[in-house]
Amino acid sequence: MTDLSLINTIPVVELEDKLGSVFEHAPWVARGIAPMRPFLSIDDLHAAMLGQVLAAPESTRLEFLRGHPELAGEHARRSTLAAHSAEEQATLGLNQPNPAIAETFDELNAAYRTKFGFPFIICVRRHTLGSIIANFRARLLRDAETEQAQALTEIGHITRLRLASLVEGPGSKPLSGWLSTHVLDVSIGRPAAGMTLELVELGEAGERTYGKFVTNHDGRTNAPILPQGQMRIGVYELRFEVDTYFEARGAETPEFLGLVPIRFRITDPESHYHVPLLVSPGGYSTYRGS
Amino acid sequence: MTDLSLINTIPVVELEDKLGSVFEHAPWVARGIAPMRPFLSIDDLHAAMLGQVLAAPESTRLEFLRGHPELAGEHARRSTLAAHSAEEQATLGLNQPNPAIAETFDELNAAYRTKFGFPFIICVRRHTLGSIIANFRARLLRDAETEQAQALTEIGHITRLRLASLVEGPGSKPLSGWLSTHVLDVSIGRPAAGMTLELVELGEAGERTYGKFVTNHDGRTNAPILPQGQMRIGVYELRFEVDTYFEARGAETPEFLGLVPIRFRITDPESHYHVPLLVSPGGYSTYRGS
Amino acid sequence: MTDLSLINTIPVVELEDKLGSVFEHAPWVARGIAPMRPFLSIDDLHAAMLGQVLAAPESTRLEFLRGHPELAGEHARRSTLAAHSAEEQATLGLNQPNPAIAETFDELNAAYRTKFGFPFIICVRRHTLGSIIANFRARLLRDAETEQAQALTEIGHITRLRLASLVEGPGSKPLSGWLSTHVLDVSIGRPAAGMTLELVELGEAGERTYGKFVTNHDGRTNAPILPQGQMRIGVYELRFEVDTYFEARGAETPEFLGLVPIRFRITDPESHYHVPLLVSPGGYSTYRGS
Amino acid sequence: MTDLSLINTIPVVELEDKLGSVFEHAPWVARGIAPMRPFLSIDDLHAAMLGQVLAAPESTRLEFLRGHPELAGEHARRSTLAAHSAEEQATLGLNQPNPAIAETFDELNAAYRTKFGFPFIICVRRHTLGSIIANFRARLLRDAETEQAQALTEIGHITRLRLASLVEGPGSKPLSGWLSTHVLDVSIGRPAAGMTLELVELGEAGERTYGKFVTNHDGRTNAPILPQGQMRIGVYELRFEVDTYFEARGAETPEFLGLVPIRFRITDPESHYHVPLLVSPGGYSTYRGS
Repeated sequence: MTDLSLINTIPVVELEDKLGSVFEHAPWVARGIAPMRPFLSIDDLHAAMLGQVLAAPESTRLEFLRGHPELAGEHARRSTLAAHSAEEQATLGLNQPNPAIAETFDELNAAYRTKFGFPFIICVRRHTLGSIIANFRARLLRDAETEQAQALTEIGHITRLRLASLVEGPGSKPLSGWLSTHVLDVSIGRPAAGMTLELVELGEAGERTYGKFVTNHDGRTNAPILPQGQMRIGVYELRFEVDTYFEARGAETPEFLGLVPIRFRITDPESHYHVPLLVSPGGYSTYRGS
Repeated sequence: MTDLSLINTIPVVELEDKLGSVFEHAPWVARGIAPMRPFLSIDDLHAAMLGQVLAAPESTRLEFLRGHPELAGEHARRSTLAAHSAEEQATLGLNQPNPAIAETFDELNAAYRTKFGFPFIICVRRHTLGSIIANFRARLLRDAETEQAQALTEIGHITRLRLASLVEGPGSKPLSGWLSTHVLDVSIGRPAAGMTLELVELGEAGERTYGKFVTNHDGRTNAPILPQGQMRIGVYELRFEVDTYFEARGAETPEFLGLVPIRFRITDPESHYHVPLLVSPGGYSTYRGS
Repeated sequence: MTDLSLINTIPVVELEDKLGSVFEHAPWVARGIAPMRPFLSIDDLHAAMLGQVLAAPESTRLEFLRGHPELAGEHARRSTLAAHSAEEQATLGLNQPNPAIAETFDELNAAYRTKFGFPFIICVRRHTLGSIIANFRARLLRDAETEQAQALTEIGHITRLRLASLVEGPGSKPLSGWLSTHVLDVSIGRPAAGMTLELVELGEAGERTYGKFVTNHDGRTNAPILPQGQMRIGVYELRFEVDTYFEARGAETPEFLGLVPIRFRITDPESHYHVPLLVSPGGYSTYRGS
Repeated sequence: MTDLSLINTIPVVELEDKLGSVFEHAPWVARGIAPMRPFLSIDDLHAAMLGQVLAAPESTRLEFLRGHPELAGEHARRSTLAAHSAEEQATLGLNQPNPAIAETFDELNAAYRTKFGFPFIICVRRHTLGSIIANFRARLLRDAETEQAQALTEIGHITRLRLASLVEGPGSKPLSGWLSTHVLDVSIGRPAAGMTLELVELGEAGERTYGKFVTNHDGRTNAPILPQGQMRIGVYELRFEVDTYFEARGAETPEFLGLVPIRFRITDPESHYHVPLLVSPGGYSTYRGS
């Protein structure tokens, strides 16, 4: 990590060395902001870099978009991606896709490039695999202008996260929310302790389980279900083993409920999602809390 | 009750005899609709009568408004009201107001007449005493045009109900909804049988209790809490004796809840209001059901 | 259908002809109750027949148990079952099991017969396929005495339903409950009209979908989700298309909830199950209602 | 405040000076524990002092009970109470009772003393006025043995709180819980900000209002509704101005709910009570949370 105060003072050649890789194959972005220094915050720095792209001539901007790699494409599978992209795609296994996933992306990539003339761009770190595929399909139906704007929005997210991993300084917005739950046993008015639950990600790419949790004496999990840095846009299900809990505490009528699934969408991974369960043997409530 | 088919065929003088009192001191309304007969429904008949008022010259309309009696006024207390008005005001005891209520109405009546030049008109049968006083205060703040329109709307309600008590025939809209509840013991997933509850009307005119009810084996009351014909605009509280119920069935932790009040407003007395209670020793839910 | 009054008066040989097939390969049960006639209700008749089995010597009772066919066994697949059993097993496709199901039952049947010396007996009409397999596995772990008692309990259910399809008469208990739902949009205090939902059966035998439903203006389905006669013990999921509904009515924030699954168990198929959904864009409740 | 280490080492005469007033008119309790020093915690010290009372001969114990002052009695009104009692009774205004309250206590005190031969003893700091009167009435119906035991339990509470105000040291249990709320607007899945609410204490002694609160951006109040040290056994109502909130944010149908009262009991003032409101225009939930 480099301190922002250093970024503000080093020679241009060193600045390009530090930040030249933030925008994919576009070191001119880092060079371009050199005369605008100093920046008071990482947000200001990021806004200035993004401004370089937005202010560039359309042909340059289009060339810049075309410089992005495909998802699960040839570069990803042959490990010839730029370092940031390699790391990002690997978080979802896009460098080693199974045959079904590979085929899905091959088809989608080809269709997208044919229609729009540049590769599909999305901030991988903000999405689950299922959400990327769902987005891919939806965005294929749009017009070129909307997709160019969307690609730039995604590049904003990508570069904001890259920059935050490189530069330390004041005023950066929260980079990630987290996911928590709280289980209340309303039939006795106390936290439900010792209830097992698991988080599952749903979607076209199949179910993915994120380990199991057991509620503590306060009805909460000791750690966030999804900690900061692991929140991704997607469809999830929290599955609570309600029958086992009620049987263990000797409740009268646990037959109605067994495993209780709560399905919800994360659409804003920079926010905290609190998804509680208020449960009795005869029914339950859930809601987006805070 | 007279059948609509008869209304459609009797001579004008008999028509005036039957319907002349529906619009307060305005037998000309009944005479005016004679040539428009036959009517296919009571709603059509009512619409035609109301149309007479709306089509009348402004001076006639204003005179008609001025012909209405005050609420809890001299005529009401001396029993010199027209029959319909007498009966209607008596349903809320406005013919024999206690001193505090009498003073409240004296002040409000005087202020209203001074400001608008005609008496305050409201469909008494659709309101509780508390709701009338609250409306009275709110409407005093309005302008003359709005209040003339409101007075005609109220006269529409008043005459619709009067007509429905005089004429039988097809197609009349529901004249009244009703109020019901349903108590579920969510801690065991079964109806809560044997729970005592009462309905109380709240408001400036003081609390008024409408008897007690006990839920049956299905968690409902055997009769509507407010049956058809007794729904009035107002603020109410259903009070459920939750602790007594849970103690009786031997629930583990009944300390948190004692008497559970559910406060709600009836604003549309022609509708069914279903106000259930889903209750556990540790909490409860309510909602407007159907 | 034969009327109970006729059953009460026909010669023994005709009685055996009418009721001899109710208890599997045991016409002696029907003969045995002849001298106990007349019966006042079908329940009395059934109790008397069951009494014959319970009063029989242990060896007879065991032989009777052994006379029952296996589920998805050779007789079922070769269509050599007695008529009642054939019809019952066919309701779950056990006469034409797919290879995986056939293998599962082959293994379970062999293990059960080896351990207990008689075939696994369960009232097929009260269970889903998933529930039968789950029961089969659980009952394999029990001791012989418990399983003999359980087999007789199941025979009670089987013969009660067979008798009810043959004899008409007073006093028979309800043979089946039904499943209903009710969707309230709590964010506006009105029934949720036009919401699509489907019922899915879950379990080891895979998911089975029971068609789709759309709520009417009162937030209910026009017909029961499971009508009388189709209630079976099992694990189910009602899946409500909440996002589509909220989008259609223009609600502000529908992102949190998409498809809402409510998972529950039917354990008493002779009862009514009412499983409502009280939903807002930010959360929901469900409970076993009545 | 005196440190426990000092209590453990000072001469007996100073010990009596420091702690002689903890047990009402019973300096012998403080003297009695001198040889048992040192104590490792305030809880140990308290247990030892209480042990002196329990181990005393019955006549001494009864004399000790008789040494307690009446509530709102002559000593309280003439300000001739011992310092601790004076301060405690003053927290509920029992030194200056209004005529109605004075009469109530006069009657209850006389009846209690006649029946049991010692004054009614209760830990005033743990109760509201309404709760004291309700307890007084209920305890009058009990037998002498139960009431002697109850009096000693109350003395345990009284002296635990007195000791905690005099001695500092390790291991003292929490002396008080607190009351909090959290308002979620489930119709949009966000905290309800800017909602006004108030806390009211109910009971025979009349309503007492504890100021108003407004929820912050997280749907919580900036300070506890009842902070530590102000929790008392009693019946309370939280009153939420739900209609004003929904009107302010432009919700579609706010007519059903106006002011929403949540009535609950505090029975364990050493615990945290969290009483949230999950609200939509068409309904709401509450529960004892954590």
